[in-house]
Amino acid sequence: MRGETHAIPERSGTAFWLPKGALLTVIDPKGGQVADLLAYNAVDVREVISSGRTLDYAETISLTTGHHLYSNRSQVMLTIVDDSVGQHDFLLTPCSIDTFHHFYPDLEPHRGCFGNLVEALAPYGIEPDAIPVAFNCFMNVPVGPSGKLEVLPPVSKAGDHICFRAEMDLIIGLTACSAPASNGGTFKPIHYQISDNVD
Amino acid sequence: MRGETHAIPERSGTAFWLPKGALLTVIDPKGGQVADLLAYNAVDVREVISSGRTLDYAETISLTTGHHLYSNRSQVMLTIVDDSVGQHDFLLTPCSIDTFHHFYPDLEPHRGCFGNLVEALAPYGIEPDAIPVAFNCFMNVPVGPSGKLEVLPPVSKAGDHICFRAEMDLIIGLTACSAPASNGGTFKPIHYQISDNVD
Repeated sequence: MRGETHAIPERSGTAFWLPKGALLTVIDPKGGQVADLLAYNAVDVREVISSGRTLDYAETISLTTGHHLYSNRSQVMLTIVDDSVGQHDFLLTPCSIDTFHHFYPDLEPHRGCFGNLVEALAPYGIEPDAIPVAFNCFMNVPVGPSGKLEVLPPVSKAGDHICFRAEMDLIIGLTACSAPASNGGTFKPIHYQISDNVD
Repeated sequence: MRGETHAIPERSGTAFWLPKGALLTVIDPKGGQVADLLAYNAVDVREVISSGRTLDYAETISLTTGHHLYSNRSQVMLTIVDDSVGQHDFLLTPCSIDTFHHFYPDLEPHRGCFGNLVEALAPYGIEPDAIPVAFNCFMNVPVGPSGKLEVLPPVSKAGDHICFRAEMDLIIGLTACSAPASNGGTFKPIHYQISDNVD
Protein backbone atom coordinates (compact mmCIF):
# COMPACT_ATOMS: atom_id res chain seq x y z
CA MET A 1 0.00 0.00 0.00
CA ARG A 2 1.40 3.36 -1.00
CA GLY A 3 1.60 5.98 1.71
CA GLU A 4 0.80 9.65 1.70
CA THR A 5 1.58 11.58 -1.46
CA HIS A 6 4.31 14.19 -1.07
CA ALA A 7 4.71 16.98 -3.62
CA ILE A 8 8.01 18.49 -4.74
CA PRO A 9 7.17 21.92 -6.22
CA GLU A 10 8.49 22.79 -9.65
CA ARG A 11 12.26 23.53 -9.83
CA SER A 12 12.91 22.39 -6.26
CA GLY A 13 14.19 19.37 -4.37
CA THR A 14 14.05 17.49 -1.10
CA ALA A 15 15.82 14.79 0.88
CA PHE A 16 14.55 12.14 3.27
CA TRP A 17 15.40 8.93 5.05
CA LEU A 18 14.19 5.72 3.37
CA PRO A 19 14.44 2.58 5.49
CA LYS A 20 15.58 -0.77 4.11
CA GLY A 21 12.61 -2.66 2.60
CA ALA A 22 10.49 0.44 2.01
CA LEU A 23 9.12 1.21 -1.42
CA LEU A 24 9.63 4.65 -2.96
CA THR A 25 7.32 5.52 -5.84
CA VAL A 26 8.28 8.56 -7.91
CA ILE A 27 5.33 9.92 -9.89
CA ASP A 28 5.17 12.35 -12.78
CA PRO A 29 1.74 13.88 -12.03
CA LYS A 30 1.42 16.01 -15.17
CA GLY A 31 3.67 14.15 -17.59
CA GLY A 32 6.90 15.15 -19.29
CA GLN A 33 8.79 16.00 -16.09
CA VAL A 34 12.19 14.70 -14.94
CA ALA A 35 13.10 13.85 -11.32
CA ASP A 36 16.78 13.47 -10.37
CA LEU A 37 17.33 10.81 -7.71
CA LEU A 38 20.39 10.30 -5.49
CA ALA A 39 20.94 7.69 -2.77
CA TYR A 40 23.44 7.56 0.09
CA ASN A 41 24.00 4.91 2.74
CA ALA A 42 22.27 6.41 5.79
CA VAL A 43 24.93 4.92 8.09
CA ASP A 44 27.92 6.21 6.09
CA VAL A 45 27.15 8.79 3.44
CA ARG A 46 30.51 8.24 1.73
CA GLU A 47 28.77 5.24 0.17
CA VAL A 48 26.77 6.67 -2.73
CA ILE A 49 24.92 5.62 -5.84
CA SER A 50 27.30 4.87 -8.73
CA SER A 51 26.37 5.05 -12.38
CA GLY A 52 29.64 3.39 -13.33
CA ARG A 53 29.13 0.33 -11.13
CA THR A 54 25.46 0.06 -12.07
CA LEU A 55 25.92 0.27 -15.84
CA ASP A 56 28.81 -2.20 -15.64
CA TYR A 57 26.80 -4.82 -13.73
CA ALA A 58 23.60 -4.25 -15.73
CA GLU A 59 25.44 -4.32 -19.08
CA THR A 60 23.00 -1.73 -20.41
CA ILE A 61 22.27 1.97 -20.08
CA SER A 62 18.51 1.23 -20.33
CA LEU A 63 17.55 0.52 -16.74
CA THR A 64 14.04 -0.60 -15.84
CA THR A 65 12.09 -3.12 -13.73
CA GLY A 66 14.36 -5.75 -12.24
CA HIS A 67 17.57 -3.76 -12.43
CA HIS A 68 19.60 -2.90 -9.34
CA LEU A 69 21.19 0.46 -8.63
CA TYR A 70 24.61 -0.11 -7.04
CA SER A 71 26.79 1.98 -4.76
CA ASN A 72 30.44 2.89 -5.24
CA ARG A 73 31.12 -0.07 -2.91
CA SER A 74 29.30 -2.53 -5.24
CA GLN A 75 26.38 -2.95 -2.85
CA VAL A 76 22.79 -2.88 -4.12
CA MET A 77 21.13 0.30 -2.85
CA LEU A 78 17.83 0.20 -4.74
CA THR A 79 15.96 -2.24 -6.96
CA ILE A 80 13.55 -1.00 -9.61
CA VAL A 81 10.38 -3.01 -8.90
CA ASP A 82 7.89 -1.23 -11.17
CA ASP A 83 8.28 1.17 -14.08
CA SER A 84 5.48 2.44 -16.31
CA VAL A 85 7.85 4.42 -18.55
CA GLY A 86 11.05 2.47 -19.24
CA GLN A 87 13.01 5.56 -20.29
CA HIS A 88 15.41 7.06 -17.76
CA ASP A 89 18.92 8.50 -17.80
CA PHE A 90 21.95 7.47 -15.75
CA LEU A 91 24.68 9.31 -17.69
CA LEU A 92 24.36 12.95 -16.64
CA THR A 93 25.08 14.93 -13.49
CA PRO A 94 22.40 17.24 -12.06
CA CYS A 95 22.33 20.65 -13.75
CA SER A 96 23.99 23.49 -11.85
CA ILE A 97 24.35 27.21 -12.29
CA ASP A 98 27.43 26.45 -14.44
CA THR A 99 25.34 24.15 -16.62
CA PHE A 100 22.79 26.91 -17.09
CA HIS A 101 25.52 29.37 -18.12
CA HIS A 102 26.74 26.79 -20.65
CA PHE A 103 23.45 25.70 -22.20
CA TYR A 104 21.18 28.70 -21.62
CA PRO A 105 23.38 31.80 -21.77
CA ASP A 106 20.39 34.02 -22.56
CA LEU A 107 18.24 32.84 -19.64
CA GLU A 108 18.40 33.89 -16.02
CA PRO A 109 20.59 31.11 -14.54
CA HIS A 110 19.05 28.73 -12.03
CA ARG A 111 20.90 26.74 -9.38
CA GLY A 112 19.29 23.67 -10.93
CA CYS A 113 18.89 20.22 -9.42
CA PHE A 114 22.50 20.44 -8.25
CA GLY A 115 21.82 23.52 -6.13
CA ASN A 116 18.52 22.13 -4.88
CA LEU A 117 20.21 18.87 -3.88
CA VAL A 118 23.10 20.69 -2.16
CA GLU A 119 20.61 22.48 0.08
CA ALA A 120 18.42 19.42 0.71
CA LEU A 121 21.36 17.09 1.49
CA ALA A 122 23.39 19.48 3.66
CA PRO A 123 21.54 18.56 6.89
CA TYR A 124 22.70 14.96 6.36
CA GLY A 125 26.36 15.97 6.19
CA ILE A 126 26.58 15.49 2.41
CA GLU A 127 28.82 18.04 0.70
CA PRO A 128 28.38 19.47 -2.82
CA ASP A 129 31.42 17.61 -4.15
CA ALA A 130 29.76 14.32 -3.14
CA ILE A 131 26.95 14.73 -5.67
CA PRO A 132 27.63 12.28 -8.52
CA VAL A 133 25.72 11.29 -11.65
CA ALA A 134 22.07 10.99 -10.60
CA PHE A 135 19.50 8.43 -11.65
CA ASN A 136 17.35 10.81 -13.68
CA CYS A 137 13.83 9.38 -13.61
CA PHE A 138 11.87 9.93 -16.85
CA MET A 139 14.82 11.76 -18.49
CA ASN A 140 15.04 10.97 -22.19
CA VAL A 141 18.67 10.93 -23.36
CA PRO A 142 19.08 8.73 -26.42
CA VAL A 143 22.61 7.78 -27.52
CA GLY A 144 22.96 7.84 -31.30
CA PRO A 145 25.04 5.42 -33.38
CA SER A 146 27.99 7.86 -33.37
CA GLY A 147 27.76 8.33 -29.60
CA LYS A 148 25.92 11.65 -29.82
CA LEU A 149 23.68 12.44 -26.83
CA GLU A 150 20.39 14.26 -27.19
CA VAL A 151 18.22 15.58 -24.38
CA LEU A 152 14.63 15.12 -25.58
CA PRO A 153 11.32 15.72 -23.77
CA PRO A 154 10.35 12.83 -21.48
CA VAL A 155 7.92 10.29 -22.89
CA SER A 156 6.19 9.98 -19.48
CA LYS A 157 2.47 10.75 -19.35
CA ALA A 158 0.46 12.15 -16.45
CA GLY A 159 0.47 9.59 -13.63
CA ASP A 160 3.41 7.58 -14.88
CA HIS A 161 5.69 6.29 -12.16
CA ILE A 162 8.77 4.32 -11.24
CA CYS A 163 8.98 2.37 -7.98
CA PHE A 164 12.18 1.45 -6.09
CA ARG A 165 12.74 -0.88 -3.15
CA ALA A 166 15.39 0.24 -0.68
CA GLU A 167 17.96 -2.51 -0.14
CA MET A 168 19.66 -0.66 2.73
CA ASP A 169 18.82 2.29 4.96
CA LEU A 170 19.19 5.28 2.66
CA ILE A 171 19.22 9.04 2.48
CA ILE A 172 17.42 9.93 -0.74
CA GLY A 173 17.75 13.21 -2.64
CA LEU A 174 14.93 13.88 -5.12
CA THR A 175 14.07 16.84 -7.34
CA ALA A 176 11.63 18.26 -9.83
CA CYS A 177 14.15 19.08 -12.57
CA SER A 178 14.80 22.71 -13.47
CA ALA A 179 16.37 22.53 -16.94
CA PRO A 180 14.22 23.65 -19.90
CA ALA A 181 15.45 21.07 -22.43
CA SER A 182 15.01 18.12 -20.04
CA ASN A 183 11.32 18.83 -19.41
CA GLY A 184 9.95 19.89 -22.78
CA GLY A 185 10.29 23.56 -21.86
CA THR A 186 7.87 23.58 -18.92
CA PHE A 187 8.46 23.02 -15.21
CA LYS A 188 6.09 20.80 -13.29
CA PRO A 189 6.01 19.24 -9.83
CA ILE A 190 7.03 15.69 -8.94
CA HIS A 191 5.12 13.53 -6.48
CA TYR A 192 6.41 10.66 -4.38
CA GLN A 193 5.01 8.08 -2.01
CA ILE A 194 6.75 5.91 0.56
CA SER A 195 5.14 2.56 1.31
CA ASP A 196 4.83 1.51 4.94
CA ASN A 197 4.75 -2.10 3.76
CA VAL A 198 8.32 -2.84 4.73
CA ASP A 199 9.14 -6.54 4.23
CA MET B 1 58.88 17.35 -27.03
CA ARG B 2 57.84 14.26 -25.11
CA GLY B 3 59.79 13.45 -21.97
CA GLU B 4 61.10 10.19 -20.61
CA THR B 5 58.96 7.10 -21.16
CA HIS B 6 57.55 5.60 -17.98
CA ALA B 7 56.21 2.04 -17.93
CA ILE B 8 53.24 0.80 -15.90
CA PRO B 9 53.65 -3.00 -15.63
CA GLU B 10 50.71 -5.20 -16.54
CA ARG B 11 47.82 -5.21 -14.04
CA SER B 12 49.24 -2.35 -11.98
CA GLY B 13 48.81 1.39 -11.54
CA THR B 14 50.53 4.59 -10.51
CA ALA B 15 49.82 8.20 -9.57
CA PHE B 16 51.76 11.39 -10.16
CA TRP B 17 51.56 15.15 -10.15
CA LEU B 18 50.91 16.81 -13.54
CA PRO B 19 51.41 20.58 -13.64
CA LYS B 20 49.09 22.95 -15.50
CA GLY B 21 50.16 23.22 -19.15
CA ALA B 22 52.02 19.91 -19.24
CA LEU B 23 51.18 17.28 -21.84
CA LEU B 24 50.50 13.70 -20.76
CA THR B 25 50.75 11.10 -23.52
CA VAL B 26 49.32 7.67 -22.70
CA ILE B 27 50.70 4.99 -25.03
CA ASP B 28 49.55 1.45 -25.70
CA PRO B 29 52.95 -0.10 -26.53
CA LYS B 30 51.72 -3.54 -27.61
CA GLY B 31 48.15 -2.75 -28.72
CA GLY B 32 44.81 -3.88 -27.35
CA GLN B 33 45.41 -2.63 -23.79
CA VAL B 34 43.20 -0.33 -21.69
CA ALA B 35 44.49 2.38 -19.30
CA ASP B 36 42.13 3.85 -16.70
CA LEU B 37 42.80 7.53 -16.04
CA LEU B 38 41.64 9.63 -13.08
CA ALA B 39 42.33 13.30 -12.35
CA TYR B 40 42.07 15.31 -9.13
CA ASN B 41 42.73 18.98 -8.47
CA ALA B 42 46.17 18.92 -6.84
CA VAL B 43 45.20 21.81 -4.55
CA ASP B 44 41.90 20.28 -3.38
CA VAL B 45 41.40 16.61 -4.21
CA ARG B 46 37.67 16.85 -3.55
CA GLU B 47 37.53 18.28 -7.06
CA VAL B 48 37.62 15.25 -9.37
CA ILE B 49 37.04 14.24 -12.95
CA SER B 50 33.31 13.86 -13.70
CA SER B 51 31.88 11.71 -16.47
CA GLY B 52 28.45 13.25 -15.92
CA ARG B 53 29.59 16.85 -16.39
CA THR B 54 31.87 15.93 -19.31
CA LEU B 55 29.29 13.95 -21.28
CA ASP B 56 26.70 16.66 -20.68
CA TYR B 57 28.92 19.47 -21.99
CA ALA B 58 30.34 17.39 -24.87
CA GLU B 59 26.88 16.11 -25.90
CA THR B 60 28.48 12.81 -26.90
CA ILE B 61 29.93 9.71 -25.27
CA SER B 62 32.56 9.53 -28.05
CA LEU B 63 35.33 11.75 -26.73
CA THR B 64 38.41 12.49 -28.82
CA THR B 65 40.73 15.32 -29.93
CA GLY B 66 39.36 18.73 -28.94
CA HIS B 67 37.10 17.52 -26.15
CA HIS B 68 37.52 18.73 -22.58
CA LEU B 69 37.32 16.53 -19.50
CA TYR B 70 35.49 18.43 -16.76
CA SER B 71 35.53 18.21 -12.98
CA ASN B 72 32.56 17.88 -10.64
CA ARG B 73 32.88 21.67 -10.27
CA SER B 74 32.46 22.25 -14.02
CA GLN B 75 36.09 23.26 -14.49
CA VAL B 76 38.15 21.91 -17.40
CA MET B 77 40.79 19.55 -15.98
CA LEU B 78 42.20 18.07 -19.20
CA THR B 79 41.90 18.68 -22.93
CA ILE B 80 42.44 15.86 -25.42
CA VAL B 81 44.96 17.35 -27.86
CA ASP B 82 45.88 14.24 -29.88
CA ASP B 83 44.29 10.82 -30.26
CA SER B 84 45.38 8.12 -32.70
CA VAL B 85 42.53 5.76 -31.69
CA GLY B 86 39.27 7.65 -31.19
CA GLN B 87 37.68 4.88 -29.14
CA HIS B 88 37.59 5.31 -25.37
CA ASP B 89 35.10 4.73 -22.57
CA PHE B 90 33.76 7.18 -20.00
CA LEU B 91 30.82 5.15 -18.68
CA LEU B 92 32.36 2.54 -16.37
CA THR B 93 34.05 2.57 -12.98
CA PRO B 94 37.43 0.83 -12.53
CA CYS B 95 37.09 -2.90 -11.91
CA SER B 96 37.44 -4.04 -8.31
CA ILE B 97 37.58 -7.36 -6.49
CA ASP B 98 33.76 -7.23 -6.40
CA THR B 99 33.67 -6.75 -10.16
CA PHE B 100 35.89 -9.79 -10.58
CA HIS B 101 33.59 -11.89 -8.38
CA HIS B 102 30.65 -10.74 -10.53
CA PHE B 103 32.09 -11.22 -14.02
CA TYR B 104 34.77 -13.89 -13.50
CA PRO B 105 33.53 -16.17 -10.70
CA ASP B 106 35.80 -19.00 -11.89
CA LEU B 107 39.01 -16.93 -11.92
CA GLU B 108 41.24 -15.96 -9.04
CA PRO B 109 39.90 -12.48 -8.19
CA HIS B 110 42.16 -9.47 -8.75
CA ARG B 111 41.93 -6.12 -6.99
CA GLY B 112 41.70 -4.59 -10.44
CA CYS B 113 42.28 -1.01 -11.47
CA PHE B 114 40.21 0.07 -8.47
CA GLY B 115 42.56 -1.61 -6.00
CA ASN B 116 45.62 -0.41 -7.88
CA LEU B 117 44.31 3.17 -7.88
CA VAL B 118 43.41 3.00 -4.19
CA GLU B 119 47.03 2.17 -3.36
CA ALA B 120 48.54 4.67 -5.79
CA LEU B 121 46.29 7.57 -4.73
CA ALA B 122 46.44 7.00 -0.96
CA PRO B 123 49.63 9.06 -0.50
CA TYR B 124 47.75 12.05 -1.94
CA GLY B 125 44.98 11.77 0.64
CA ILE B 126 42.47 10.34 -1.83
CA GLU B 127 40.15 7.74 -0.30
CA PRO B 128 38.67 4.69 -2.05
CA ASP B 129 35.15 6.16 -2.00
CA ALA B 130 36.46 9.14 -3.99
CA ILE B 131 37.22 7.01 -7.06
CA PRO B 132 34.52 7.76 -9.66
CA VAL B 133 33.97 6.69 -13.27
CA ALA B 134 37.40 6.79 -14.92
CA PHE B 135 38.29 7.96 -18.40
CA ASN B 136 39.22 4.56 -19.77
CA CYS B 137 41.75 5.14 -22.55
CA PHE B 138 41.44 2.70 -25.47
CA MET B 139 38.49 0.86 -23.82
CA ASN B 140 35.96 -0.28 -26.40
CA VAL B 141 32.42 -0.18 -24.99
CA PRO B 142 29.86 0.25 -27.76
CA VAL B 143 26.28 1.14 -26.82
CA GLY B 144 23.75 -0.74 -28.94
CA PRO B 145 20.44 0.66 -30.22
CA SER B 146 18.61 -0.88 -27.24
CA GLY B 147 21.12 0.57 -24.78
CA LYS B 148 23.03 -2.68 -24.33
CA LEU B 149 26.70 -2.27 -23.42
CA GLU B 150 29.40 -4.59 -24.70
CA VAL B 151 33.01 -4.71 -23.58
CA LEU B 152 35.02 -5.56 -26.70
CA PRO B 153 38.78 -5.78 -27.25
CA PRO B 154 40.39 -2.37 -27.84
CA VAL B 155 40.99 -1.37 -31.44
CA SER B 156 44.31 0.27 -30.49
CA LYS B 157 47.44 -1.00 -32.24
CA ALA B 158 51.00 -1.08 -30.92
CA GLY B 159 52.21 2.49 -30.42
CA ASP B 160 48.78 4.10 -30.47
CA HIS B 161 48.38 6.99 -28.05
CA ILE B 162 46.18 9.68 -26.63
CA CYS B 163 47.59 12.99 -25.42
CA PHE B 164 46.05 15.30 -22.81
CA ARG B 165 46.94 18.85 -21.79
CA ALA B 166 46.55 19.63 -18.09
CA GLU B 167 44.36 22.70 -17.60
CA MET B 168 45.07 22.90 -13.86
CA ASP B 169 47.62 21.37 -11.49
CA LEU B 170 46.50 17.75 -11.21
CA ILE B 171 47.05 14.49 -9.42
CA ILE B 172 46.70 11.78 -12.07
CA GLY B 173 45.92 8.11 -11.42
CA LEU B 174 46.76 5.79 -14.32
CA THR B 175 46.68 2.02 -14.74
CA ALA B 176 47.34 -0.89 -17.04
CA CYS B 177 43.89 -2.49 -16.86
CA SER B 178 43.52 -5.90 -15.20
CA ALA B 179 40.19 -7.19 -16.53
CA PRO B 180 40.30 -10.00 -19.11
CA ALA B 181 37.36 -8.87 -21.25
CA SER B 182 38.58 -5.27 -21.49
CA ASN B 183 41.97 -6.22 -22.95
CA GLY B 184 41.23 -9.06 -25.35
CA GLY B 185 42.18 -11.64 -22.71
CA THR B 186 45.84 -10.64 -22.32
CA PHE B 187 47.49 -8.19 -19.93
CA LYS B 188 50.07 -5.78 -21.26
CA PRO B 189 51.92 -2.73 -19.91
CA ILE B 190 51.01 0.90 -20.52
CA HIS B 191 53.57 3.61 -21.20
CA TYR B 192 53.27 7.32 -20.57
CA GLN B 193 55.30 10.43 -21.20
CA ILE B 194 55.08 13.89 -19.64
CA SER B 195 56.15 16.78 -21.80
CA ASP B 196 58.33 19.47 -20.29
CA ASN B 197 57.02 21.88 -22.90
CA VAL B 198 54.70 23.68 -20.53
CA ASP B 199 53.07 26.66 -22.25
